[in-house]
Amino acid sequence: MMNHSSADGEAENTQPLRYLSKGEAAAIEAELLKDYRFGQQQLIELWGQACALAIAKAYPLSSLTKKQPTVLVICGPEQNGSIGLVCARHLRIFNFEPTIYHPKRSAHSLHQDFTVQCEKMDIPFLSYLPTEVQLINDAYNLVIDAMLGPEADCSNIKEPYSGILVTLKQAKIPIASVDVPSGWDVEEANQDGINPDVLISLMAPKKCASTFLGKHFLVGRFLPYDIQKKYELNLPDFPGTDYLVKL
Amino acid sequence: MMNHSSADGEAENTQPLRYLSKGEAAAIEAELLKDYRFGQQQLIELWGQACALAIAKAYPLSSLTKKQPTVLVICGPEQNGSIGLVCARHLRIFNFEPTIYHPKRSAHSLHQDFTVQCEKMDIPFLSYLPTEVQLINDAYNLVIDAMLGPEADCSNIKEPYSGILVTLKQAKIPIASVDVPSGWDVEEANQDGINPDVLISLMAPKKCASTFLGKHFLVGRFLPYDIQKKYELNLPDFPGTDYLVKL
Repeated sequence: MMNHSSADGEAENTQPLRYLSKGEAAAIEAELLKDYRFGQQQLIELWGQACALAIAKAYPLSSLTKKQPTVLVICGPEQNGSIGLVCARHLRIFNFEPTIYHPKRSAHSLHQDFTVQCEKMDIPFLSYLPTEVQLINDAYNLVIDAMLGPEADCSNIKEPYSGILVTLKQAKIPIASVDVPSGWDVEEANQDGINPDVLISLMAPKKCASTFLGKHFLVGRFLPYDIQKKYELNLPDFPGTDYLVKL
Repeated sequence: MMNHSSADGEAENTQPLRYLSKGEAAAIEAELLKDYRFGQQQLIELWGQACALAIAKAYPLSSLTKKQPTVLVICGPEQNGSIGLVCARHLRIFNFEPTIYHPKRSAHSLHQDFTVQCEKMDIPFLSYLPTEVQLINDAYNLVIDAMLGPEADCSNIKEPYSGILVTLKQAKIPIASVDVPSGWDVEEANQDGINPDVLISLMAPKKCASTFLGKHFLVGRFLPYDIQKKYELNLPDFPGTDYLVKL
């Protein structure tokens, strides 16, 4: 008999969910790539897809107030941005109308591939972000913040991202952040930073999420049980075949 | 405004679904990889995941008659087999108990990675398939046939696959085939071959599926609209955020 720790309901749900440090999050990802032989392309696809499912859950098409189901997806230069690109592509498949702002393209061919996939899905890319925030409020139902993620050094945010954050802080439409809200430290919320309505944590929430009061989704239902155990993640049960769970 | 052909309900649903020839199926896949810059890893992950969702839909955990939610996944040496490996991994995440029989491992590192991912999820691998079919009937709730797929030459099936097909033809438990039932030609059902209860078509059904009378699922909800149009696939609408649709 196999040991299905999540099936027989032991331990997991009674222990508190772990909030990861920056180092722990990086260590889990490195282990997935090296020891478990996951590919970066595979992980980014799974995360981006699950982010789209979380957005569709938090903001169903029928709930959107604008005439068109528009969503602005702001993508950073690294992995968080690629997850945003995949999220946009799956949202398009779900009949949302994403528009992407991706000011700095990565030189990595993997990230470029994700960009081309969006372009070939006829998803529009903005060449600049309006500084007049009213234009953003009027045009989109929500903003997905897939900019800086856990890798960024939030004490030294450069242009164009510092300017985007100034704009986003004034936005009146909801913001959904991927993994770590841009401008926040992985381990600490930034009280003066953006204030997302939705946070989508990848694999396990990061320490900065422990005081988050908005809608919080956990995605990444693919983590090998040995990793969950090793890092004592105490993940909640995902219902049925859902790839997300609301925390 | 963008043209959301699947959202505004034009054309697609009124035109009959296309059944693809072997050449068309190969051409679509080649185009996805070359022009749309999808990666093989990404496609196999999406297909395998959607197959697991289809299996969970056709055979919910609560419907299984054996004491344990066991599933035997038979994986071939090429892409169809890798899709089976991914399917098994996602089934494990959904609390099924897959066992894999993967008699000939691929030399490609991509396929090897998918194998390691299953091994590291503690999914058991059989070293041989019992020829006494009663042992299979007794041990598993169903068999997933991810053996030969559309690439195989069904007029020249070699061992061990020819022997496996002899065994599977005698099986009393349901068989679910991925894309093309093993031993069938892509373009024609094999009346003397295995007779799956479930067929999971990837992207679009193949010609052999046109006379299939079992439960038929279509998966692969990621195809760019331009490809759907170019090959006149006339795909049905997928409900909500579902990654599969029952045909």
